[in-house]
Amino acid sequence: MDFTNARVAIVGLGLMGGSLAAALRAHDACREVVGVARRQSSLTMATTLRMIHRGATDLREGVAGADLVVLCTPVGDILARLAEIGPWLKPGCVVLDVGSTKAEICRAMERLPEGVQPIGGHPMCGKESSGLSVAEPSLYLDKVFVLAPLERTAPEAVALAEALVRAVGARPLYLEPERHDRIVAAISHLPYLLAVSLVLAAERLAQQEDGQQDAMLWALAASGFGDTSRVAASSIPMMSDILRTNRAAILDAARAAQGELARLIELLQEDDIEALLPLLGAARERRRGMNR
Amino acid sequence: MDFTNARVAIVGLGLMGGSLAAALRAHDACREVVGVARRQSSLTMATTLRMIHRGATDLREGVAGADLVVLCTPVGDILARLAEIGPWLKPGCVVLDVGSTKAEICRAMERLPEGVQPIGGHPMCGKESSGLSVAEPSLYLDKVFVLAPLERTAPEAVALAEALVRAVGARPLYLEPERHDRIVAAISHLPYLLAVSLVLAAERLAQQEDGQQDAMLWALAASGFGDTSRVAASSIPMMSDILRTNRAAILDAARAAQGELARLIELLQEDDIEALLPLLGAARERRRGMNR
Repeated sequence: MDFTNARVAIVGLGLMGGSLAAALRAHDACREVVGVARRQSSLTMATTLRMIHRGATDLREGVAGADLVVLCTPVGDILARLAEIGPWLKPGCVVLDVGSTKAEICRAMERLPEGVQPIGGHPMCGKESSGLSVAEPSLYLDKVFVLAPLERTAPEAVALAEALVRAVGARPLYLEPERHDRIVAAISHLPYLLAVSLVLAAERLAQQEDGQQDAMLWALAASGFGDTSRVAASSIPMMSDILRTNRAAILDAARAAQGELARLIELLQEDDIEALLPLLGAARERRRGMNR
Repeated sequence: MDFTNARVAIVGLGLMGGSLAAALRAHDACREVVGVARRQSSLTMATTLRMIHRGATDLREGVAGADLVVLCTPVGDILARLAEIGPWLKPGCVVLDVGSTKAEICRAMERLPEGVQPIGGHPMCGKESSGLSVAEPSLYLDKVFVLAPLERTAPEAVALAEALVRAVGARPLYLEPERHDRIVAAISHLPYLLAVSLVLAAERLAQQEDGQQDAMLWALAASGFGDTSRVAASSIPMMSDILRTNRAAILDAARAAQGELARLIELLQEDDIEALLPLLGAARERRRGMNR
């Protein structure tokens, strides 16, 4: 079917879902945008801001008759919704998600009834703040949107999902779920653990003998600390679901960083700065090559 | 003396020195700004851009008759200059530096001839890129500029240094050298080591069986990775001098982070996400409280 004729149900109107709805409505990209949220107040706000055409607090009611359902809640909630949603979908309905990990979600998608068309998704964008109030239609613009179709997924279903991705200005990238999860463990989940370690270490180092924090340390924390620690402010429900569902790959990544840090500490301990220099140089070259 | 009547010699026209000179000239803050640089081309550029009134490639010539000398090179070079500069300074000359560590520099300042007025300094600003070409007069604006006077430093000398700090729009903060070094180890040098560990770990995780890097990993590296790894692009000469001159405090800080990371890994390994949550929550609250 043509995406412009599609009824799209967006489940979860937080930063990701709200921004997706807003982008679809702003570009008049499909026939109807239906929002599903737990709280009526979110639906009222999204309707008033012209992010959705109409809303439902009941999931079954919200997805009824939808051509494409997009699950936009944290990973744990997506898994729970996938377990119940099947019987309520119309035949041929495409089910896409925007969860941060893909292997476990794609396995849950396998259990959807025959006739339903599942496809995993992960847009590589976000903010540290969460919620509908920080949603914006430009969130997906020029960002990579990973798509992970299942073997059973029909080409027309993949095409519909890709049409949605392009409609919000994102760039589709097809990736196998396990490879996706290994990659995001290194580039997204590991930075989070290191940022948390940095903040907790600074907290410990700021501790004074009287048990109070040395306010001077926090007052002086400059842009380097701010950048390196930024993702430590990420949403806890989102991150705990990520840690639960990508544990093995995250452990691998965290141990790799632990090994590198131990090597730096050892050379520093031995006062062998000369041996440190090539490592620092390699990191600098790689980081400069990233250009962002 | 009044700062507006002072001749200021700035030794080293990179990002820090160039920006300092540019800010002083832009505000017509003192009588004369003399630039000292190894290469004539830097002096020509700085003169053309109206950052300095005149320049010298010879240090002795550059600091002759100066009321205030500001050493704006990496820490190792500052230490080398402090060892030779004494006999060339006029009586009462104030010697300030902008080096990233303070204890070792302040100890070297003690050895300056009597009559010279030394004061340690560290402006809490910078960029990942270095050099005169990225210098800008607004670099110091609203930034904290740490000042560490020695016991021998006369109040008038401290006042002159503080006048320079205020003239470039920075906020003076008096701090004892050892305390400064412990604080910056936690808020600046530790973020650097963690950023380097992250980039080196990602490099390792991207390694494929054929020895090539998985280009997809680098293509997908999103804003979280970019922020957390940004300071890994810092200048190697600057960072290696910092590691040399603040080794003990940096080792303490790095071991604190190593301990926190090990704790996170252990809980993840035990699949005890519930026990992880309060740690993640504490880091999130602290980071959100920083507001930058």
